[in-house]
Amino acid sequence: MEETFVPLRGIKNDLKGRLLCYKQDWTGGFSAGIRIFAPTTYIFFASAIPVISFGEQLERNTDGSLTAVQTLASTALCGIIHSLFGGQPLLILGVAEPTVLMYTFMYNFAKDRKDLGHKLFLAWTGWYFFNSSILECCNQIVLGACSIINRFTRVAGELFGLLIAMLFMQQAIRGIVEEFGIPQRENPEQTALQPSWRFGNGMFALVLSFGLLLTAIRSRKARSWLYGTGWLRGFIADYGVPLMVLVWTAVSYIPVNDVPRGIPRRLFSPNPWSPGAYSNWTVIKEMATVPPLYIVGAFVPATMIAVLYYFDHSVASQLAQQKEFNLKKPPSYHYDLLLLGFLVILCGLIGIPPSNGVIPQSPMHTKSLATLKHQLLHNKLVSTARKSISKNSSLSQLYRSMQEAYNEMQTPLVYQLPSTMGLKELRESTIQLASSTGYIDAPVDENIFDVDKEIDELLPVEVKEQRFSNLLQSLMVGGCVAAMPLLKKIPTSVLWGYFAFMAIESLPGNQFWERILLLFTAPSRRYKVLEEYHATFVEAVPFKTIATFTLFQTVYLLVCFGITWIPIAGVLFPLLIMLLVPVRQYLLPKFFKGAHLQDLDAAEYEEAPSIAYNMTFEDQERQATATHIDDLEILDEIMTRSRGEIRRTQSPKVSSTTPSSAGDIKPSYSPRVLQNAYSPRISQPRGIAEKGLGLKQTPSPGPSTLGQSSLGSSSS
Amino acid sequence: MEETFVPLRGIKNDLKGRLLCYKQDWTGGFSAGIRIFAPTTYIFFASAIPVISFGEQLERNTDGSLTAVQTLASTALCGIIHSLFGGQPLLILGVAEPTVLMYTFMYNFAKDRKDLGHKLFLAWTGWYFFNSSILECCNQIVLGACSIINRFTRVAGELFGLLIAMLFMQQAIRGIVEEFGIPQRENPEQTALQPSWRFGNGMFALVLSFGLLLTAIRSRKARSWLYGTGWLRGFIADYGVPLMVLVWTAVSYIPVNDVPRGIPRRLFSPNPWSPGAYSNWTVIKEMATVPPLYIVGAFVPATMIAVLYYFDHSVASQLAQQKEFNLKKPPSYHYDLLLLGFLVILCGLIGIPPSNGVIPQSPMHTKSLATLKHQLLHNKLVSTARKSISKNSSLSQLYRSMQEAYNEMQTPLVYQLPSTMGLKELRESTIQLASSTGYIDAPVDENIFDVDKEIDELLPVEVKEQRFSNLLQSLMVGGCVAAMPLLKKIPTSVLWGYFAFMAIESLPGNQFWERILLLFTAPSRRYKVLEEYHATFVEAVPFKTIATFTLFQTVYLLVCFGITWIPIAGVLFPLLIMLLVPVRQYLLPKFFKGAHLQDLDAAEYEEAPSIAYNMTFEDQERQATATHIDDLEILDEIMTRSRGEIRRTQSPKVSSTTPSSAGDIKPSYSPRVLQNAYSPRISQPRGIAEKGLGLKQTPSPGPSTLGQSSLGSSSS
Repeated sequence: MEETFVPLRGIKNDLKGRLLCYKQDWTGGFSAGIRIFAPTTYIFFASAIPVISFGEQLERNTDGSLTAVQTLASTALCGIIHSLFGGQPLLILGVAEPTVLMYTFMYNFAKDRKDLGHKLFLAWTGWYFFNSSILECCNQIVLGACSIINRFTRVAGELFGLLIAMLFMQQAIRGIVEEFGIPQRENPEQTALQPSWRFGNGMFALVLSFGLLLTAIRSRKARSWLYGTGWLRGFIADYGVPLMVLVWTAVSYIPVNDVPRGIPRRLFSPNPWSPGAYSNWTVIKEMATVPPLYIVGAFVPATMIAVLYYFDHSVASQLAQQKEFNLKKPPSYHYDLLLLGFLVILCGLIGIPPSNGVIPQSPMHTKSLATLKHQLLHNKLVSTARKSISKNSSLSQLYRSMQEAYNEMQTPLVYQLPSTMGLKELRESTIQLASSTGYIDAPVDENIFDVDKEIDELLPVEVKEQRFSNLLQSLMVGGCVAAMPLLKKIPTSVLWGYFAFMAIESLPGNQFWERILLLFTAPSRRYKVLEEYHATFVEAVPFKTIATFTLFQTVYLLVCFGITWIPIAGVLFPLLIMLLVPVRQYLLPKFFKGAHLQDLDAAEYEEAPSIAYNMTFEDQERQATATHIDDLEILDEIMTRSRGEIRRTQSPKVSSTTPSSAGDIKPSYSPRVLQNAYSPRISQPRGIAEKGLGLKQTPSPGPSTLGQSSLGSSSS
Repeated sequence: MEETFVPLRGIKNDLKGRLLCYKQDWTGGFSAGIRIFAPTTYIFFASAIPVISFGEQLERNTDGSLTAVQTLASTALCGIIHSLFGGQPLLILGVAEPTVLMYTFMYNFAKDRKDLGHKLFLAWTGWYFFNSSILECCNQIVLGACSIINRFTRVAGELFGLLIAMLFMQQAIRGIVEEFGIPQRENPEQTALQPSWRFGNGMFALVLSFGLLLTAIRSRKARSWLYGTGWLRGFIADYGVPLMVLVWTAVSYIPVNDVPRGIPRRLFSPNPWSPGAYSNWTVIKEMATVPPLYIVGAFVPATMIAVLYYFDHSVASQLAQQKEFNLKKPPSYHYDLLLLGFLVILCGLIGIPPSNGVIPQSPMHTKSLATLKHQLLHNKLVSTARKSISKNSSLSQLYRSMQEAYNEMQTPLVYQLPSTMGLKELRESTIQLASSTGYIDAPVDENIFDVDKEIDELLPVEVKEQRFSNLLQSLMVGGCVAAMPLLKKIPTSVLWGYFAFMAIESLPGNQFWERILLLFTAPSRRYKVLEEYHATFVEAVPFKTIATFTLFQTVYLLVCFGITWIPIAGVLFPLLIMLLVPVRQYLLPKFFKGAHLQDLDAAEYEEAPSIAYNMTFEDQERQATATHIDDLEILDEIMTRSRGEIRRTQSPKVSSTTPSSAGDIKPSYSPRVLQNAYSPRISQPRGIAEKGLGLKQTPSPGPSTLGQSSLGSSSS
C-alpha cells in the first residue's frame, strides 16, 4: 500500500474497489445456498456468547447502567450496518473485551464524582465517544491516518491476537473459580449457596466447562474422523460447536432430584422488556447536562478509545485478510474506519457500548468461509472427476476437465483475471509424482486415483467472500435480544468452557504462538514443524534469532497483559500496543537482519536486508530479561534508540527464503520426509487452512499456492 | 503344536524348553539394568490397583470373609512362585474379576445354608478349590488336556479379552455412579453423606476419574510428543500412568476449606494387622467340619472353577505370547497349568482367593517389555550409527556395522539361531527407497540419514523376555499389604478412572475390537485401517464376510456378558466361553471359507480352505439376530450342527493372504499412500507395537518383520 497523505484518497480507493464487487458480494452469498448456514451459525455463536457474558461483566462493573441487552443491541446494530454498507464484509463487529475494560476504568473514575456519578455516566460516555469519533474522523479525513495501517505488521497483529486470547482464557478461568464462590447480587442465604452446594456447583461447573471444551475441539476435527458417514462427519464439523453448547446445556439439566434450583448457575440478564432496560436510549437528552469541564476532560479517554478502536478494528480486519487466505477482493481499511467513526457516535448517542472489529471472531469467520468454499469446490470437482473417469479418460484428460470445472467456479472479477494457475501447477507436480510411480498414461480408475483424497490435496485455500453470512449472523444476534429467556438456560460454566474454546481456536495460524511452541519443541523434532505450520522461517532463520525475537515478543505481550491489571492506568494499554509500530519500524531492525525480519514479520514498507547491528545472543538475553525487570526501561530504550533513525523508503522487498529451494531441506529415505521436500514451500498457505479448518494434513505441492497468495494478497 | 494325548509329554516338552533358557531369563533381566523398573512399575500398578478394589468388592459381597489383604496376599504369593518356578514368565498372575464373580455366586449359595453359612464358607471354598485342582491336575496329567489349548483360537482369546474389558468398564461406570449414592457400611448420618455433599462428591469423582483417564492415556503417547526433551518424554511414557495416579491423588487433597472429610471417598480396607484380617489362615482346621454332602457337592462349582481357571490362565498366557510380539523363547502351557493346580490348592488351604493368569495385565506386560527392548536396541544402534557416520562411511557400510551391533544384542538361544534376517531385509527395502532419491553411495551424514528416526523404523518388534520384572512386581504387590495405610489415600474415583484406562489400554491390538471399529469406518477411509492395524484381513477377506463374522462374535460376546448378570446361573459363564471351541471348530467352517477363517482367526489345527457352505448375508443376519433373541437357541444349534462332523487332521496351513503382495494394494499418487504400499505387510506386527506401545506411526518396510513373526511365532 503506497503512502498516502492526500485527504480521502484512501477512502476513495476503497470505495472504488469494493463497489466493483458489491453485487457479487450478494449473489455469491446466495449462490452458496443452504450451506451458508454452517459458517453463519458458527460465527453467530462465536459473537453472541461472548457479547452476552461481556454484557454480564459490564452490568457488574457499571452497577447495571449497561447490560447484555445493550451489548447485544450494539453488536446487532453495528453488524447489520457494516454488513450492508461496510467495506470488508469478512470483518465481524462486536463489543470486545477491551471495550469492557475501558468502560470499567471510566466508570470507576466517574462514579465518585458527585457532579457526574452513576446518573450522568452514560451521558458522559456519550460525550467521549462523540469526541473520540471526531478525533478519528479528523485524522481519517485530514491525515488519511490509516495509511499507516501497513505499519501494523504481523508482530503487532498477532501479539494483539494473543493478548485477546489471554483475556478470553483469563475470563474462562476466573469464571470457573467464581463458580465455587458466592456471586454478587445473590442473597447468600439461599440453599444453593451453602458451602456444600457451592462445592458441588463448582465441581459440576468443571465437568460442564471441560466437557464443552474437549468435545467442541474434537468436533471441529470431525471431517478427518475415521468413523461415521461423510455426511455425518461434515455436519458435526460444521455445526459441532453450537451443537455441543446445546448438548452440555441439556446435560446441565440431568441432576434434578433434591438438587436445589440455581445449580448449575445460568446466564443472568434482564429481559429487554423489563423496566430498567431502556434507561439508556434517552441518554442524548442528558448529554447537555454534563458539566463542560468533563466534556473537555473526556478528550483524554477519547484519545484512548480512538486509538483502541482504530487499532482493534484495523487489526481484526487485517487478521481476517491474511495472505494465507488468498482473498480475491480488495481490502477497505480507510473506509471501514470512517464508517466505524459514525457507528461510534451513533452508539454513543443512544447510550450503548459501541462495537468494533473483533478478534478472534473475524479470522474465524474467514476460516469457516474457506471451509465452505473448499466444500463447494470439492463437490464440483469430485463429480467432474467421477464423470470423466467413467469415460475412462487418461490422467491428463482428467486434469483438464477438472481444470475447466475449477475455472467455472472462479468468480470473474472486473479488475482481476481469475487465477487459473492454481490447479494447473498443482497438477504438474502431482503428475510428476505420478509418473515416478508410472501411472501417467493408463486410463485412470477409482483405485489408482482416489478421487476424494486427491482432490482435497489439489485444492488451494480459497474463501467464499460475500456479505450474506455477516448480515445473517448480525440479524441472529439481534434475535438474541428477544430470545433472552432461552439464552438464560445456558449454564455459565458452559460459557466459560466456550471462552476457553475460543481462546484455543484463535491460536492455530498465529505465527507468534507457533514460534513459542517451537521454543519448546525438541530439536530433533523441529523438522515436524515444517510439515505443519506456515513455517518457512524455520529453515530460513537461525534458531537463535527466532528464539530472541519470540522472547522479546513474549515479554512485550506479558507487559501489555500486566498493564490491563492496573486499576486506572490500565486505560493506557492501547498506547502500549500502538508503541509496537515504532518499535517494529525503528528498534527491531537494529537487532535483526532485514532478511530475517522479512521472514518473521514481512512488512511492505521495508526494504532489502538492512545493515544488521550485530548483537550476541547473550546481549539479547540480558536486554530481554532487563525489560522483564522494568517495563518503563524498555519504553525509554525504544524512544532513545529510535531517535535520529532515517525512515526507509518503499522498495521491492527481499526475503531470505527466496533463494531457498526444495534442495535445502534435508532429504531423507522415508516417504514421510520425502514429502517434506514439498510441504515447506506450501506450508505457509496450507498450514493455517488445515490446522484452522481441521482438514486432514495432506502433502500438497505448493509453489502455485504460494503464487496464489502473492497474487491474491490482500494487505498490499 | 501337535496333538498329544500321551500323559505328561506336553509338560515334559515345556520343562525342557524353558529350562534351556532359564538362566538367560535371569541374566537378561539384570542386563537391562535400571530401565527394567519402567515395565515393572507399570505392571505393578496394573495388577495391584484392580486386585485391591476386587478385594473391596469381595469384602462387600462376602460380608467381610475376604478383604483386599487376602487378594493382595494371593496375588503376591502366586506371582512370586510363578515368576520363580513358572514356565512363561511373561504371564502375570492375579485375582481376577471372574474369580470375584464365582466367589459371589458361591457365597450367595452358602450363606443361607445353616449347616454351612458364613462361618464355614471359606472352609468349603477350600474344598472346592481342592476338588477343582484335583480335576485339573487329573485331566492335565492323564489327558494332557491343555494340548487342546491350540483349540483356543484368536476368536476365543480376543472375545474373552473384550469380555474382561467390558467387565472393567462396567466396574468403572458402576463405581462412579455409586459415588453419588450412599455407600454400605457407612452411617448415612455423617455430613459427607448429606445430599448436597454427595452431589459434590459425585461431581468431584467425575473430575478425578476422567482427569486420570485422559491424562493417563495421553501420557502413554508421550514418546511421540513434539515438546520436551527426549529424556522427559521417555520418562513420562514409562512412568506416566503411576505418576498420574499420584498426581490425581494429590489433586484430591486440594479442596480443604470447609469440605468435610470423607470427600472424596478413598480406598477402604482393613490393615493387615487389624484383628479380623487373619481368620482365614486357619481355614484348613475347619475343613474337616464341612458336611460330606457339601464336599461332594463342591464338585459342581469345582468343575466351573477348573474350567474358568484353565481357560483364563491359558488365554492370558496366549495373549501375552501373540505372534505379533515375535517371541524367541518357547511357551509352556502344560506345565504352567500344572503349577496353577498346585497354586489353587495352596490358596484354597490357607483360605485366600487363588490367582490365575490375568488379562489385560499379561499382554500389557509383554507390550511394555517390547518397548523396553526397543529402547535398548535403539540406543545401541544409534550410538553405532553415529560412530560409523563420524568415520563418514557409505550407507551400505553404515548398515553393515548396524547389522553387527544388532546381532550382538540378540540373545543366542541354544535351540534357535539368532534371526539376523530382521535388519538385513529392512535395510534392502530402505536402500531401494534411498536409491530412488539418489543418496545411495554418498557418504552419509546426519542430514541425509536422520539416525533417531530411521532406526526407529528399522527395528522389528522384539520383547525383553525375562523373569526379573515379574518377580519384582509380585514383591511390590506383597509390599502393598504392608503399605495399606498409604494405599488408603488413593480416592476410589481415581480407581474407577484407572479401571476405564485399563479397559481402553487392552483394546488396541485386539483384532476383534478393530473389526468392530471397521464396521463403523466410512468405506472411503477403510484404506486407513491398513496403515494402522495388523489388518491383512482387510484386503484379503470380503467386507461382507468380515461384517458377518464380527457380528456373530459380537452377539456371542453380549450373550456371555449377559450371563454374568444372572444371579446364580451366572456361575455357568465359563462354560459358554468353552463352547467357543466347538463353535469355532465345527460350526464356523460351515459358514465361512477356510481361507477367510485363516485370516480372521488362524488356527494351527485347521487345513486348507474347506468347501464353503454358501450362506447369504441375509441368512447370517437372521441367524445372528435370532440368537440375539434367544441365547439357548444358538447353543442347541451349535450342538446339533456340530454332530457327525469329521475332525480334520493336521496339515500345513494355507492363508488367502499368502499370494497377496504389495502389488495388490491400490497405489496412488500422494506420498502418503505411496507408503501404504508397504504398511499392510508390516501392519500386522507393527500395528500392535505402535498402537499399544504408543510409538510414533512410521512407515517401515515389512516382509522381514513378517518373516520374523512366523519365525519367532510362539504358539506353534
